[in-house]
Amino acid sequence: MIIDRLMEKIDELKNPTVIGLDTRLDYLPDYILEKWGLISGKATMDNAAEAVLEFNKTIVDNIYDIVPAVKIQIACYEMLGLPGLSVFNRTVDYCRDKGLIVIGDAKRNDIGSTAREYARAFLGETQFGDLVLGRAFPVDFLTVNPYLGYDGVQPFIECCKKYNKGIFVLAKTSNASSCQIQDLKTQDERVFQAVARLIHEWGRELVGKNGYSCVGAVVGATYPEQARILRASMPHTFFLVPGYGAQGGKAEDIALCFDNQGRGAIVNASRSILCSYRADRWKDKFTSEEFGQAARAEALRMRDDITRYL
Amino acid sequence: MIIDRLMEKIDELKNPTVIGLDTRLDYLPDYILEKWGLISGKATMDNAAEAVLEFNKTIVDNIYDIVPAVKIQIACYEMLGLPGLSVFNRTVDYCRDKGLIVIGDAKRNDIGSTAREYARAFLGETQFGDLVLGRAFPVDFLTVNPYLGYDGVQPFIECCKKYNKGIFVLAKTSNASSCQIQDLKTQDERVFQAVARLIHEWGRELVGKNGYSCVGAVVGATYPEQARILRASMPHTFFLVPGYGAQGGKAEDIALCFDNQGRGAIVNASRSILCSYRADRWKDKFTSEEFGQAARAEALRMRDDITRYL
Repeated sequence: MIIDRLMEKIDELKNPTVIGLDTRLDYLPDYILEKWGLISGKATMDNAAEAVLEFNKTIVDNIYDIVPAVKIQIACYEMLGLPGLSVFNRTVDYCRDKGLIVIGDAKRNDIGSTAREYARAFLGETQFGDLVLGRAFPVDFLTVNPYLGYDGVQPFIECCKKYNKGIFVLAKTSNASSCQIQDLKTQDERVFQAVARLIHEWGRELVGKNGYSCVGAVVGATYPEQARILRASMPHTFFLVPGYGAQGGKAEDIALCFDNQGRGAIVNASRSILCSYRADRWKDKFTSEEFGQAARAEALRMRDDITRYL
Repeated sequence: MIIDRLMEKIDELKNPTVIGLDTRLDYLPDYILEKWGLISGKATMDNAAEAVLEFNKTIVDNIYDIVPAVKIQIACYEMLGLPGLSVFNRTVDYCRDKGLIVIGDAKRNDIGSTAREYARAFLGETQFGDLVLGRAFPVDFLTVNPYLGYDGVQPFIECCKKYNKGIFVLAKTSNASSCQIQDLKTQDERVFQAVARLIHEWGRELVGKNGYSCVGAVVGATYPEQARILRASMPHTFFLVPGYGAQGGKAEDIALCFDNQGRGAIVNASRSILCSYRADRWKDKFTSEEFGQAARAEALRMRDDITRYL
């Protein structure tokens, strides 16, 4: 199962982190912006997308041997229209060619008949009857929003079974206003706990040999108390943990997302890695042309920061 | 404001319905499937997308003068990859050229920094600094999932203000398992009611001259009791009502989504219109080549069915 492959890669590299290729144009160093006409004012969506691809490739070249996976935020590519989504796919291909597991961060959701189409687009194959037309945006894991309940999630789980894929369902997100709905108090718990119970149930059939399910949960690093509750209540649910670094999640808090063997979670950082060449810690050591090496240095620092608490 | 334009078009046409271009390949009549090689087995994503576009254009040609708007379900196009999303945009353009208001049904959601990119992709412009690169997937209204709370919705509202657009935020969805999270009982209400209060608040600043806000809500036609509660508690929130027709929502129940002047909501039907040429009611009157005329006949029947209860 894909979750076992992810866990084995984490063990092999001794690195439970994932780098988020949430590549925004203002993350790019000047020399790439200039090369693609984004400073001179002759910018197009095509050029902007190619600039993002060049940046991504350099990041991947510098981190593929030290991290097990990347998380690619599709919004950054959707904003660049069709050229952007072409670069999304070319980035996915580039990552998979380097042996990285790819998490598509798309937070898709809809009623069942429509969720099936999203599931096929990202986790399965596009078919007409028995005829396979191809794969639209193929990733290994996909993030999914649970607000519609089981029949909006079930088609994704079907594709996990059929195509050996995984999902991470939003339980408690890392943003400030996640409390507005997710922390609403029901009769004896919070909404995110009810959602967590559902995710735990939904994942039962897809538990791999390492004890975790291909149906995982997104649990923000910014809410340690909630993470502690969730870790205890979802023993076979693997966590994707956003919010480390730029969003303010601390390594000692993030440790609460892991089980007592130091497994069961993978921590994402995006901006703090992609823009590390501008950070106080690294900007005197690396030029902006060396943003890839800076990303590698920061990725190793993040790995060490997180693993020392496990 | 766009909500006033929508309401005025509804008044003008005396038709508070919207046709969902949730075009699935198995909705297409044989002659289109054959033309594009989808029966002979030489099918590609490109051909499939072109087949969908041909179908959509015929539907639009037959309904643009009797309905105010269309709702385009992006999952159907995402499943066909880049050719599919190209056809999404070409369908949007075709609809707008015919004067239709376009609702993009994408249910996008993420934390604020990422929600901003989705908002720009669908409702605004893609920019790098002050440089405008273009518009990715431009629609007039977009559906949005509220699970992340205000900071995941606020960027969409910003784009509504800046670009004269609107959103419909999921409150109570039409599917069977929507109860699992949306109907959870909090101390004195259900989750969907708490969400409704938030949507009502979020829309305050964008109320148009007809008394309704550009921040609307999705309220499924399949739950009349919930619709009644929500209509009373959200006096300036316009409803997008899915679930009529194939999903089982009845016109007499749907009337609960409207205010006592028969305004405040627009009702969607997709499959029952697109596939009307196969329905018992129409299949002896229209051939499959006349699917466009059948869609028009069913759209008029739907209009009359719904308006007689208002």
